[in-house]
Amino acid sequence: MEMDLSLEDFLELSEEEQLPYIGDRAVLYAQQFDRPALDELCAVADRCRALAKSPGGAARMAEILRYRMALNFFVQPSSRTFMSFNTAQACLGLNRMSVRDLAISSMSKGESLVDSVRTFISYVDLVVMRHSDELAAPAAFWTATKAHRRITLPDGRVVPVPIINAGSGTRQHPTQALLDVYTLQRSLRRVGGLDGKTLLLAGDLKRGRTVRSLSMLMTQYPGVSLLFAAPERYQMLPDITDALDRAGVSWRPLDNLVDGLPLADAVYMTRIQDEWDKLDRKGFVRADHRFVFRKEHLDLLRPHAPLLHPLPKRDELDPALDYVDDDRVAYWRQERNGMWMRVGLLLRLFGALQALDEAEAATRA
Amino acid sequence: MEMDLSLEDFLELSEEEQLPYIGDRAVLYAQQFDRPALDELCAVADRCRALAKSPGGAARMAEILRYRMALNFFVQPSSRTFMSFNTAQACLGLNRMSVRDLAISSMSKGESLVDSVRTFISYVDLVVMRHSDELAAPAAFWTATKAHRRITLPDGRVVPVPIINAGSGTRQHPTQALLDVYTLQRSLRRVGGLDGKTLLLAGDLKRGRTVRSLSMLMTQYPGVSLLFAAPERYQMLPDITDALDRAGVSWRPLDNLVDGLPLADAVYMTRIQDEWDKLDRKGFVRADHRFVFRKEHLDLLRPHAPLLHPLPKRDELDPALDYVDDDRVAYWRQERNGMWMRVGLLLRLFGALQALDEAEAATRA
Amino acid sequence: MEMDLSLEDFLELSEEEQLPYIGDRAVLYAQQFDRPALDELCAVADRCRALAKSPGGAARMAEILRYRMALNFFVQPSSRTFMSFNTAQACLGLNRMSVRDLAISSMSKGESLVDSVRTFISYVDLVVMRHSDELAAPAAFWTATKAHRRITLPDGRVVPVPIINAGSGTRQHPTQALLDVYTLQRSLRRVGGLDGKTLLLAGDLKRGRTVRSLSMLMTQYPGVSLLFAAPERYQMLPDITDALDRAGVSWRPLDNLVDGLPLADAVYMTRIQDEWDKLDRKGFVRADHRFVFRKEHLDLLRPHAPLLHPLPKRDELDPALDYVDDDRVAYWRQERNGMWMRVGLLLRLFGALQALDEAEAATRA
Repeated sequence: MEMDLSLEDFLELSEEEQLPYIGDRAVLYAQQFDRPALDELCAVADRCRALAKSPGGAARMAEILRYRMALNFFVQPSSRTFMSFNTAQACLGLNRMSVRDLAISSMSKGESLVDSVRTFISYVDLVVMRHSDELAAPAAFWTATKAHRRITLPDGRVVPVPIINAGSGTRQHPTQALLDVYTLQRSLRRVGGLDGKTLLLAGDLKRGRTVRSLSMLMTQYPGVSLLFAAPERYQMLPDITDALDRAGVSWRPLDNLVDGLPLADAVYMTRIQDEWDKLDRKGFVRADHRFVFRKEHLDLLRPHAPLLHPLPKRDELDPALDYVDDDRVAYWRQERNGMWMRVGLLLRLFGALQALDEAEAATRA
Repeated sequence: MEMDLSLEDFLELSEEEQLPYIGDRAVLYAQQFDRPALDELCAVADRCRALAKSPGGAARMAEILRYRMALNFFVQPSSRTFMSFNTAQACLGLNRMSVRDLAISSMSKGESLVDSVRTFISYVDLVVMRHSDELAAPAAFWTATKAHRRITLPDGRVVPVPIINAGSGTRQHPTQALLDVYTLQRSLRRVGGLDGKTLLLAGDLKRGRTVRSLSMLMTQYPGVSLLFAAPERYQMLPDITDALDRAGVSWRPLDNLVDGLPLADAVYMTRIQDEWDKLDRKGFVRADHRFVFRKEHLDLLRPHAPLLHPLPKRDELDPALDYVDDDRVAYWRQERNGMWMRVGLLLRLFGALQALDEAEAATRA
Repeated sequence: MEMDLSLEDFLELSEEEQLPYIGDRAVLYAQQFDRPALDELCAVADRCRALAKSPGGAARMAEILRYRMALNFFVQPSSRTFMSFNTAQACLGLNRMSVRDLAISSMSKGESLVDSVRTFISYVDLVVMRHSDELAAPAAFWTATKAHRRITLPDGRVVPVPIINAGSGTRQHPTQALLDVYTLQRSLRRVGGLDGKTLLLAGDLKRGRTVRSLSMLMTQYPGVSLLFAAPERYQMLPDITDALDRAGVSWRPLDNLVDGLPLADAVYMTRIQDEWDKLDRKGFVRADHRFVFRKEHLDLLRPHAPLLHPLPKRDELDPALDYVDDDRVAYWRQERNGMWMRVGLLLRLFGALQALDEAEAATRA
């Protein structure tokens, strides 16, 4: 859909109303991905991972986006998302730049975010952004569509410079949701995948953007039911639970973790997001003991059920779990999965899936 | 000319007196470029832009400076110049590093700027620097010439590590001046180029280093006349106007923008440079309404006359101009022109114009 | 040796007790390198330097570690070590990322260093780290060995992600010690190398980690004797002098520099490390005049004796020495030597010495 709205009018729209404008030209919200898209992304991530195992395959993959330049504009703290995107870009041969501090950018001279994004677009072919303002990513998307600069994709499409939301405000972190889905699907492969399974989500469900996005994506998996284990003040908000109700996803609040463990096909832990608290209340709040996963809880967990966490973690996960010899402890593998999911996402966004086919064929030959 | 002066004696010289020492081994000042050099750079920028359009051409361009390492040492805020140099370097295959904060460098241990530059030169083949001190770039040049390390260019010359001034103090920003000339020449191509035209320069002419450098370069274009529209306290300083008088360039101050618009073949707007104000006066001064370009002013502008701005902008340009459908609004294109001009400049500085010929020939074949 | 200790138990071990666990899977301490290893590294550095002189050789070298990703995690100020590693990595074709500020990492959300390192390891194939905490590097090594992720080297070994200590606390800076040895060996080549020579070490011997590591490596060179010229409060500590005694290395304290100059085959100057002082005592302490090397001291220095300094320097070296025409002034060359030594170290750590042989053979062909 052509962008016929002013910036102000576009930002007034709900996420759902923005979707037809976005199409597949940017990655702003988890709900852009329906089940076929999710399945395709998981399959592409698996293929990239396999291809990179041989030096010849890695070499061919690094040619696919070789003369493109990416900007990683991360002005909120981040280690893993930043590194994950960087590594994914390097796998595909993208040139990379980063801006991590507003003080070293022209915003310190009074430039607006929209003008800064317009400037980025003059130089780069992709903007990945993490920002504290939840309107930053849609504003960047609006700017890219209104700017004259276009890039030509290998499949012939002429498109605005793509924007990827790598986390904005408390609302959305769509690529985290994608990698969570990928990790769940991979971990549950031997038991038939995600469909029909029970997920236990625990911790700060109110402000954890990853757990909010993931819950919404579960509407794409028939028969999934959700257990929300959280202190009352951090329980999942009605905007999500209402949407789950409308989609027919069953869910239930729990006031402790242990009750849910024997029922769960997968457990997804999160930390208290106290960086959103007012400064004077901040200071690494200790996790409520009823929502801490301790090493002995592994005994309550079903044999096929993976233990996930978007990380960084604090005391809601017993450190004794970190290097235990148990395949169910999956949160470190989850990080690496994220890199491969982002490789797949970049290929899809740049219309380069055919180049992947060709790289595979050449490597097999 | 061989460097036979101490650092102190070299820095005592005027810019003009330094020129014979600099030759074409570094880019410190706009006045290093005479008309043939400017014409060559514009032509090379056009050629690089055309070559990069084909994947084969882009691939060959990325081989030209492939095993070189560039350091982008930017210790003043910058988005666009930083990105523009990074992208230009990537186009030519240069490896890149950046230092953007003195606190993370050894200067925090009491190392002098000259010693730091000497260290940079041990590792890299090019130093691009932005610094608040106008003596930083010539001091770096002196250091590079005195150091023993030399690099061998493809044309056989053995030279010190080249230094590019990417903005120093209030005085010089030569690569911005070059891209402004390139944008003017390109925009005015259909009406015979810059020669003989009238330029309207508006805003903070006193402290805007871009507008000062650009004015000086206009002495290379016969018949150009300049209109300086600025509040009295921000008018162009006598060091520039005296030089224009000596070169026979006609100029005239204006106390508002509108009077100049119907006369101008090109308009160059600038913002109030209040980062040079004392801290207690700072705080994003609003532009004087007599020097604001509003959307309706397009009606006063001649049909061929481009509207330029070095950016970042503030309220001296009506935001309604940003995405208007009018080819004369050229300031976003100006950014991209800057990248191509810097590609050309790097090729020239590294004596690699023959490699460009060869890349073009191979791409045509 | 397999890692069968908890993190706490491993960190309780002395450096010497840690050595069997480390093997050649990481570079944590200078004493990991015995004489054959040092000789091999010097020879490899020389070969890389020669190979890179031809464009074909440079191109082949840049293929050797091409699809690897390095993280340079430098959270203490550094210019030269940071650049030196970056350039060395680029020579070998490694992809590179850097984290230079804890505030932009997830540690600002309460993540532990060990968890951060575990995360790095999910994405990268090499972690180079500089940290103010001397336990940071061994903790990172422990984490890498306990993590499941492994990388496969060209020689078939399957190993944890390697860690390189690029300076930790006041204790160790092993790659600096290696480059110092390399510079000494190269500088003294015409007089038979380091064996049997007298080294004069001056300045802050107490807290200078480079001079401490270098002294320990001298136990590998039969017949070397050491002169320690320092103010009493900065003299070499007993942990080092006791070890020298045990190894049969003769040493002697001096209370001024001049007495040692005529006896020295090489002079190694260091600056007062006042960044380790309490903040209120800090402020660029002036060097004690008895330990300053002035230009006229060159007359006292033996004709073959190089003058070294790990840099950054302050007033302990007369600035008049910087660009004097005297081959013995070797501290700037020492920087470049460091880059080549790090190239060699990376090749060895990644089991890629055979790839170097092949690149040399192909370049000769």
